[in-house]
Amino acid sequence: MTQLETYITEHEERFLDDLKGWLRIPSISTLPEHAGDVRAAAEYAARDLQRIGFDKVEVIATQGHPLVYGEWLNAPGKPTVLIYGHYDVQPVDPVELWDTPPFEPTIRNGNIYCRGACDDKGQTMLVFKALESLMAVDGKLPVNVKVLIEGEEEAGGESIEHYVRTTPEPLGCDAAFICDTHMPGPETPALITGLRGIIYTEVEVQGARRDLHSGTYGGIAPNPLHALAIIISKLKDEQGHIHIPGLYDKLRPAAQVERDFWEKDPLNFAEALREEMGVSQLVGEVEHPPLERISARPTLEVHGIAGGFIGEGAKTVIPAVAKAKISLRLPPDLISKEIFRLFEKAVHNAAPEGVNVTVRNLHGGEGLVVDLDNPAMVAATQALKETYGKEPIYLREGGSIPVAALFNEILHVPVVLMGFGLPDDNLHAPNEKYSLAQFYRGIRTVARFLQNLA
Amino acid sequence: MTQLETYITEHEERFLDDLKGWLRIPSISTLPEHAGDVRAAAEYAARDLQRIGFDKVEVIATQGHPLVYGEWLNAPGKPTVLIYGHYDVQPVDPVELWDTPPFEPTIRNGNIYCRGACDDKGQTMLVFKALESLMAVDGKLPVNVKVLIEGEEEAGGESIEHYVRTTPEPLGCDAAFICDTHMPGPETPALITGLRGIIYTEVEVQGARRDLHSGTYGGIAPNPLHALAIIISKLKDEQGHIHIPGLYDKLRPAAQVERDFWEKDPLNFAEALREEMGVSQLVGEVEHPPLERISARPTLEVHGIAGGFIGEGAKTVIPAVAKAKISLRLPPDLISKEIFRLFEKAVHNAAPEGVNVTVRNLHGGEGLVVDLDNPAMVAATQALKETYGKEPIYLREGGSIPVAALFNEILHVPVVLMGFGLPDDNLHAPNEKYSLAQFYRGIRTVARFLQNLA
Repeated sequence: MTQLETYITEHEERFLDDLKGWLRIPSISTLPEHAGDVRAAAEYAARDLQRIGFDKVEVIATQGHPLVYGEWLNAPGKPTVLIYGHYDVQPVDPVELWDTPPFEPTIRNGNIYCRGACDDKGQTMLVFKALESLMAVDGKLPVNVKVLIEGEEEAGGESIEHYVRTTPEPLGCDAAFICDTHMPGPETPALITGLRGIIYTEVEVQGARRDLHSGTYGGIAPNPLHALAIIISKLKDEQGHIHIPGLYDKLRPAAQVERDFWEKDPLNFAEALREEMGVSQLVGEVEHPPLERISARPTLEVHGIAGGFIGEGAKTVIPAVAKAKISLRLPPDLISKEIFRLFEKAVHNAAPEGVNVTVRNLHGGEGLVVDLDNPAMVAATQALKETYGKEPIYLREGGSIPVAALFNEILHVPVVLMGFGLPDDNLHAPNEKYSLAQFYRGIRTVARFLQNLA
Repeated sequence: MTQLETYITEHEERFLDDLKGWLRIPSISTLPEHAGDVRAAAEYAARDLQRIGFDKVEVIATQGHPLVYGEWLNAPGKPTVLIYGHYDVQPVDPVELWDTPPFEPTIRNGNIYCRGACDDKGQTMLVFKALESLMAVDGKLPVNVKVLIEGEEEAGGESIEHYVRTTPEPLGCDAAFICDTHMPGPETPALITGLRGIIYTEVEVQGARRDLHSGTYGGIAPNPLHALAIIISKLKDEQGHIHIPGLYDKLRPAAQVERDFWEKDPLNFAEALREEMGVSQLVGEVEHPPLERISARPTLEVHGIAGGFIGEGAKTVIPAVAKAKISLRLPPDLISKEIFRLFEKAVHNAAPEGVNVTVRNLHGGEGLVVDLDNPAMVAATQALKETYGKEPIYLREGGSIPVAALFNEILHVPVVLMGFGLPDDNLHAPNEKYSLAQFYRGIRTVARFLQNLA
């Protein structure tokens, strides 16, 4: 056993305690009442970087939640890696569906359950622990490292975008590394070669100037909830086709190797997802394989519809206003701002008469395609092979990491997307968890990745 | 001035105080945490009947909220009237839209603002005060009176239905009188000659077994919110046509006099409603006049859609379950139980593949058509003419008072629907109010109605 391996093995329990301490801070970035917690989580990350031995550690104020920056640049002649993570988490509603309190880290069946356990405190913390282990064993890191951690990933990420666009020089590097993605299974190492972008919108429909009683006004009053149903049903049909004129025009054809992989689905991933969801059949565009639909096709989803009465019992109200939260996932080349304009127009065209419709762009981010041949991807491939004993597979992930596209665009560097989440980690849902085995294997893999890169 | 008129005028302030005391009790029948308040409101009504001089006053326990019964049967040879009202009220959400607290009665511009001010504490209390005035002035009532007040009108009214069906003998009478309806304006007395029935349903759609992240599952996962949008858009189109096969089959053709009234709309009521709603145009079936649409056509409305995320910011969740509250208003002859079966079938037929749909009938009630020639309607017509100085108009009301159909069916008596609400009373909405002028005129009208009936 190498010294590094020994160090990691001996410190697993303390590494987990460090994660638990971070998880207990309810750093929900979208809820203003948690602003203090978000700041506390930033400071927790900064203290950990200082403890590891980073030379320069800052909590950088922004218009929103702070960024945490740290650097260790004492490996002359070696490459420089920019490491990204985020310390903010999603809201916890519906809280009654959690088996244990959402901010009390709980170990069950080899998993740690907590909001943020996977996304992204667990994945960020394992990178920190890889850095700590390398520093502890060798007294130095094998490469130069800059760390940039944000607190608005779940809230649109405006501050980091502004920071990277206006302050690119200090972030100069040879590669970026983001640990915020998944593997198809615990024995199937994977690297992500593409990400979808996103637009997240709110469609507000106004009918009458006040709530109305359906007995008195039903038959002549505009019903904003009905109008939203009409709009949504026109935007996406039962076959999963999205009816936004122009949406599919710029879609880049997939490579043959990708199309083959999607068709063959050698890991039977689609069936695993079907079982995991507990549904009798997958829905969506039957003319595209399921793996393509979740990773490389544009999708449109409704996330919530507000307005009227949803309590116990019966209230015969026609609400004055109703709102829907609707997002689109966008494969690379579908530019979020352009697609928002098409979306906005399609919503207005779909609206029935008699209501006023407002469409808001809550946030957007671009997709990405990663080149497999750059040295950072080669080093990551090798590290996964060493830890997991098999070649990683290359996947596109359906989710959006806008900062990956941003690093690519502004810093002109390859972006390594290597994460250790699993498909059943319940991201953004009740009972989010992270596999302890993946946490510890992740530490080993990241340490090897940095060594290989040197 | 008659003795009666003098008594009413001298006691207006105390009558209003008695109403205020009742209004302060938050008797929301659909919220279990208010069960104690609902009972307190029942006891308040019982005490008032005792004070007036009713011989027998009972608070009758039921499976749900209690009934209040009172009788005064000391007018041998005179007709017996059964008087109905309800002491329960609607929930108050969204509470932030109330200008003053919903259970603090507040006088502004000649109105009393409070949940229940009109529906139906204000209208029930004015009947009590008419009874009190008659008793105080004459030492007796001009007719025999039975009073039956329920506490579940806003919650389906199951208990009163059970009571009337199983205990019809003690309720025997010559006419029923319900004070829970509206006039088109403060100078336009009206009697209601027809009511719509209702079914109030909940449609639940289940997709995956748990909430999902749209980045990982978008494209293959069933989205219950999208499925509800599809279902709702198929049930009712943009032109207000309801697509439930069989729904329109039993619709009774309206009388020519009604059709003429709807076409001519001599009071320009449709335009008044449009202005009041603050909309540029009325929606719905253009081939039917607006007055017909709100009173004699079946309508379908969505009242709320639950599921997913509606908080501040962005959460990319695909909910496991979503529910919609949907009601239909049913003109006479459309039987609620039959229509529910048609509705249920139509919902299942409209549902997209890949989801499980459950349809629940939360409650139902039948519509009614009232005969204009019976003595009770003649007495009411005369009373309105005496108080308001003009002939009342005859209207159908679009709302549902299931108990009216019940009295008609079980007790076989004519049902007088004479109420003093106004179109802008904000029933079931924030800032519910009742006109003080209507409250006082109502007392005078009801007293005259009972005198005329004798």
